[in-house]
Amino acid sequence: MAQERAGDRPASAAVLVIGDEILSGRTQDVNTGYIAKYLAQIGVDLREARTVPDDVEAIVEALNALRVRYTYVFTTGGIGPTHDDITADAVARAFGVDIDEDPRAIALLRERFSETELNRARRRMARIPKGAELIFNAISKAPGFWIGNVVVMAGVPMIMQNMMDVVGPQLAAGPRVLVETVEANGVPEGAYAEALEAIARDHEGVSVGSYPAFTSGGIRNQIVLRSRDSALLSRATAAARAMIESLFKELAR
Amino acid sequence: MAQERAGDRPASAAVLVIGDEILSGRTQDVNTGYIAKYLAQIGVDLREARTVPDDVEAIVEALNALRVRYTYVFTTGGIGPTHDDITADAVARAFGVDIDEDPRAIALLRERFSETELNRARRRMARIPKGAELIFNAISKAPGFWIGNVVVMAGVPMIMQNMMDVVGPQLAAGPRVLVETVEANGVPEGAYAEALEAIARDHEGVSVGSYPAFTSGGIRNQIVLRSRDSALLSRATAAARAMIESLFKELAR
Repeated sequence: MAQERAGDRPASAAVLVIGDEILSGRTQDVNTGYIAKYLAQIGVDLREARTVPDDVEAIVEALNALRVRYTYVFTTGGIGPTHDDITADAVARAFGVDIDEDPRAIALLRERFSETELNRARRRMARIPKGAELIFNAISKAPGFWIGNVVVMAGVPMIMQNMMDVVGPQLAAGPRVLVETVEANGVPEGAYAEALEAIARDHEGVSVGSYPAFTSGGIRNQIVLRSRDSALLSRATAAARAMIESLFKELAR
Repeated sequence: MAQERAGDRPASAAVLVIGDEILSGRTQDVNTGYIAKYLAQIGVDLREARTVPDDVEAIVEALNALRVRYTYVFTTGGIGPTHDDITADAVARAFGVDIDEDPRAIALLRERFSETELNRARRRMARIPKGAELIFNAISKAPGFWIGNVVVMAGVPMIMQNMMDVVGPQLAAGPRVLVETVEANGVPEGAYAEALEAIARDHEGVSVGSYPAFTSGGIRNQIVLRSRDSALLSRATAAARAMIESLFKELAR
């Protein structure tokens, strides 16, 4: 099911989080961060994340904007048994395909529910758009699914992670982005910003970021360098480290 | 600076998180959750959140999509002194206005930095789009700003929260959305989904959500009811509570 990619460009991705509970501040989204780390490890570039409410129009619009733009779209949330679980229907509408109870999904639900327990609400979890592949999960049995380049997963983090483990090995991944971190050693951002810009300019192919953090112990900034080219990354990292050390000595004088 | 709103519709908002570090999984975004809670408390509806990389095109496009659609857009990240801090320039481009060093912002930075310390990199933090109002922060002195309906804030959570406290009282807020939670008492979602749907249907104006959680102690679902109408909310909450109690007795039999 892994998509073919044109040329050598790394696969790209977006995350679409679906759920009123995130936008109301009730629940802190942790799925985006998990997927971001997972994709970084297998060499897929996460380029965008969106959160939309439990609203079919909003989901369809976001999905159609994202799926034409990125290699993969990962959605989380809205595939349970209650009336606010409308993701599957929205995905079917976005793709313009029919949706109905899927016998394969019903079979999975029967592993967990007796015939009496498998009521109308629970059967909603077997509604799968035509042409989708199911994504198994060992925890709740209710499947996610994969249609075109869109991967539809549960919102409960434990179940989502279980589904990601099923999906991950099937993704057309690329060479992993390597990461180096240089501790800025108490040197403030404004003191190294110009030198860092020069290092970024001299090492095209390395993404150079500076991340300030204020802790109880004072300023603790980090310079983060990312590249798929390990030799280039080493050179840029060495340059950043030497620059910080020299500034540190200067400031300590 | 608070925007006028047409009629009685509550103010709406979007959050735009700007930063490679979120998309690479290096940093867990906590700003969206904070702003979500803050807005819920003052009666502004957060309808969408997006995260984009440190890329001018991506920021401009997201900003222009969001600012025509919602009463307010809150951005976080990318207003520091380093080369990857490009938010102010992107905002100016989105609005089609000039950007230059703002004397008011330089004056604020002088409260913290000596003339020697105020180098070219740090002066970047004084680049403010024409026509913007500054947003003061007591921690780093480097200001955020407010232009049109877009509020531009720092990415460091402590500083962003400081800026939100400045901005919050100026927002055209509405009646707060009231929230009630009904513990589902160990009753699984699939057992109450149909009854809950009927309650949602019978109480238009109340948003009814069901949130499953799997803990070490078993299933711990919550039904969350939200409305600006307190009498209506009380009736819907009572109905949900009675429904769960009756199901609980049934299952315990």
